[in-house]
Amino acid sequence: MLNKNILLWSLQICLLGSTLGGNVLIWPMEGSHWLNVKIIIDELIKKEHNVTVLASSGALFITPTSNPSLKFEIYQVPFGKERVEGVINNFVLTWMENRPSPLTIWRFYQEMAKVIHDFHMISREICDGVLKNQKLMEKLKKNKFEVLLSDPVFPCGDIIALKLGIPFIYSLRFSPASTVEKHCGKVPYPPSYVPAILSELTDQMSFTDRIRNFISYHLQDYMFDTLWKSWDSYYSKALGRPTTLCETMGKAEIWLIRTYWDFEFPRPYLPNFEFVGGLHCKPAKPLPKEMGEFVQSSGEDGIVVFTLGSMVKNLTDAKADVIASALAQIPQKVLWRYTGKRPATLGANTRLYEWIPQNDLLGHPKAKAFITHGGTNGIYEAIYHGVPMVGVPMFADQPDNIAHMKAKGAAVEVNINTMTSADLLNALKTVINEPSYKENAMRLSRIHHDQPVKPLDRAVFWIEFVMRHKGAKHLRPAAHDLTWYQYHSLDVIGFLLACVATVIFLVTTCCLFSYRKFGKTGKKKKRE
Amino acid sequence: MLNKNILLWSLQICLLGSTLGGNVLIWPMEGSHWLNVKIIIDELIKKEHNVTVLASSGALFITPTSNPSLKFEIYQVPFGKERVEGVINNFVLTWMENRPSPLTIWRFYQEMAKVIHDFHMISREICDGVLKNQKLMEKLKKNKFEVLLSDPVFPCGDIIALKLGIPFIYSLRFSPASTVEKHCGKVPYPPSYVPAILSELTDQMSFTDRIRNFISYHLQDYMFDTLWKSWDSYYSKALGRPTTLCETMGKAEIWLIRTYWDFEFPRPYLPNFEFVGGLHCKPAKPLPKEMGEFVQSSGEDGIVVFTLGSMVKNLTDAKADVIASALAQIPQKVLWRYTGKRPATLGANTRLYEWIPQNDLLGHPKAKAFITHGGTNGIYEAIYHGVPMVGVPMFADQPDNIAHMKAKGAAVEVNINTMTSADLLNALKTVINEPSYKENAMRLSRIHHDQPVKPLDRAVFWIEFVMRHKGAKHLRPAAHDLTWYQYHSLDVIGFLLACVATVIFLVTTCCLFSYRKFGKTGKKKKRE
Repeated sequence: MLNKNILLWSLQICLLGSTLGGNVLIWPMEGSHWLNVKIIIDELIKKEHNVTVLASSGALFITPTSNPSLKFEIYQVPFGKERVEGVINNFVLTWMENRPSPLTIWRFYQEMAKVIHDFHMISREICDGVLKNQKLMEKLKKNKFEVLLSDPVFPCGDIIALKLGIPFIYSLRFSPASTVEKHCGKVPYPPSYVPAILSELTDQMSFTDRIRNFISYHLQDYMFDTLWKSWDSYYSKALGRPTTLCETMGKAEIWLIRTYWDFEFPRPYLPNFEFVGGLHCKPAKPLPKEMGEFVQSSGEDGIVVFTLGSMVKNLTDAKADVIASALAQIPQKVLWRYTGKRPATLGANTRLYEWIPQNDLLGHPKAKAFITHGGTNGIYEAIYHGVPMVGVPMFADQPDNIAHMKAKGAAVEVNINTMTSADLLNALKTVINEPSYKENAMRLSRIHHDQPVKPLDRAVFWIEFVMRHKGAKHLRPAAHDLTWYQYHSLDVIGFLLACVATVIFLVTTCCLFSYRKFGKTGKKKKRE
Repeated sequence: MLNKNILLWSLQICLLGSTLGGNVLIWPMEGSHWLNVKIIIDELIKKEHNVTVLASSGALFITPTSNPSLKFEIYQVPFGKERVEGVINNFVLTWMENRPSPLTIWRFYQEMAKVIHDFHMISREICDGVLKNQKLMEKLKKNKFEVLLSDPVFPCGDIIALKLGIPFIYSLRFSPASTVEKHCGKVPYPPSYVPAILSELTDQMSFTDRIRNFISYHLQDYMFDTLWKSWDSYYSKALGRPTTLCETMGKAEIWLIRTYWDFEFPRPYLPNFEFVGGLHCKPAKPLPKEMGEFVQSSGEDGIVVFTLGSMVKNLTDAKADVIASALAQIPQKVLWRYTGKRPATLGANTRLYEWIPQNDLLGHPKAKAFITHGGTNGIYEAIYHGVPMVGVPMFADQPDNIAHMKAKGAAVEVNINTMTSADLLNALKTVINEPSYKENAMRLSRIHHDQPVKPLDRAVFWIEFVMRHKGAKHLRPAAHDLTWYQYHSLDVIGFLLACVATVIFLVTTCCLFSYRKFGKTGKKKKRE
């Protein structure tokens, strides 16, 4: 007997499963964010989707690649690469000079406000570059995109999607105090055990820590609310109706979060949040010849891989000397990605490189430790390959990332501003010689590898799901339809309290009335 | 160059991935729960695990099967099958006679308290049957189980796991007001948009609904707290230290929840919660000959599948007549699973069966509608095959399940107590003839089929994960280490309020002091 239903579904799932030739639009962010989303793009192209990246003429990292399948739609903005570079450098420097601590958080906020103002100026020019370009918008409309993948650190991807009438998905590492995830995405963040981002706290908090965490959430909420407030009117104007940045962000179908439980402390989330941390990780490839020989020459001692990421290129001479002299004292060979002046104290065991194949080095069996600024991409490569870390965090989520790795026993931190050669040396000796660090790094690696579906496959699955179903409305919580006081049941609690108060009032009044009436009557009776 | 790390991991994952020959212990629950967990057991056996079921001598449904690979460890209890049957029947009847509504919830609670007392008496005898059987406990210890899969509706699975020193996993549909998931599992349930179980509310609530929901949560919490309280001392005694039922339940490594987002309204959850609803669903097999011919004879009109589940066998004659006369008026052929007296009004289009292959019928292309009591297993088969439903809910989660399907536009409900033939007839005509019901059922079906990993594979993955890693501690939220007031940050809020009050007091005192001192001086000066 022919089972039509099943045949139909099999065919449908087969057809759906492939989602052949879909059109995907990308709204990217600079720096390491771009490196991460590039991996998703490559996978989408492999699955025969047509991917178009919206990039401004002033973009720094987001530039056309050699891949002919990847289209770039370049729009004009009234600034050049230098300005983006200037804002990024200013951001990094201001953060490093004002690293937030419980006592300095207010000054940090005031200083960052200036930098973020510059950042918003650029962001707005980027938005205008697309939204006010009628010709481009019409071209995009004609291209019939099925989904837009947006990094919300640069606002406007969501507006473009709404204007094109297509669903959008976010790729996000974090927002200050997780305000966006919390208020716009409606994820609960209990301050009692979920450490606020940028607080450098863990999920094991003392009473004082919990006070810090509580204040941290509210301060960062305030920071986000005040600094991002001006976008509300921009969004309202662009969409032609009164709205807010947060309301619009809340329309994201899926939130691809660039972490996983090998890195995060367990916390509540919603079904439209997918944790795809480490999606860029892959097995190591063989090293270039010269580098491979240097690594092999390390013998039993192995190697240390050292990079401070793409944002920091040079250090002061003094700082570079402090670092180089520490490195010179370990038996391991060191591969240091550094483009600054060659430090005077550089040891024979250390080689400087303009660029290193970080993933291939960390995946090499001789890798003993990773000195890292603590960017999420790098940390995930270390987790993937099970390499313990020495963290030298500088800005953004880096101190927090290292705090996570410290709490999980896979890293030691040194303070870039105050460290001596001895500090760095001791940190390196600790992670290399104390077996617990390697064991913990390997434990995280095992957790990372032992998932039902690989992070990259999950990210692509949900992008394709949104394309197949024109959204993922079945995962969207009804919390989005409530006001903040309804969400917290304040109206219900208020009403119930009012009821209780009314009952108490009525009962008391009745009692008093009865007492007065019958009390007096009683007295009268007694007198009679 | 040989990349030892990668080779090592590939080998490790390969070895881990299979988790060959693990020993799994099952703590099952009666009725449809057993049917569901049986599917997981079969899959575990397929993957060459050794599975042992702990079943009492008084078990009703949990009886040795023909599968020689499945071991049963039967322990003696001082009651027979009749007593279990009696308690279940009493439970069903009491619920049906006192179906909870906003006005009758208190009476419902009082009546249910009696039934639940009987249920706890049996549960305790079951627990004693294992825990006080030294020989059995020693035998279990010798068997070196690696994980225990427990249905927590019968308590004690967790104690047995802890006494054997092995991790345990729950398979759970719900607990009253989700109290267990909320208080023991630490999942947040915002009452503003997450409908309390048994409330029959959806995620779209008016102000009045939200008041009902708020009260529902607290009443059911109270119900759970008072009725299950007596287990605290049993657990403390069994584990030899002061503990509570809730604290012990909180030690579950993974919670396999028997629903998914095709059925649930989106709500927060934690990373150790896995939604595996519909894991028992599978493509339809060909029907037995006689049945197949009857189904084929329905022509274009198709068939209606009708069952009230395994718990309800007979109806009153009057009720059966009402139902049969409605069924007689539809053009579809009806397959009714019914073991009671043949109703006088039975139409020629309706056939009674002692048992029907429900899944194969629902998966048949001629299936037009499913009349169901609304058990989760049956609903999931209807979702899987995309068949719209007429719900005749009776007890437990059934009214709630049908409320979910109604809200998603895939079902119409009729009240078993008050329904007339016309009610049932209209309901059937609606779901069969209004295309939206079929469309919505198909939409749910598409959502169900379009998951990165099938529910059964995910359930087995996490059981094997716990076996491979001896737990899943990386998914356990730190909320478990906090007291209730710490969890809600009440101590922090109290402290901060005290600080603010102190500052206000000091400032006011200073102002008053200054005013008195300098005010008087001023006056004095004026006089001078």
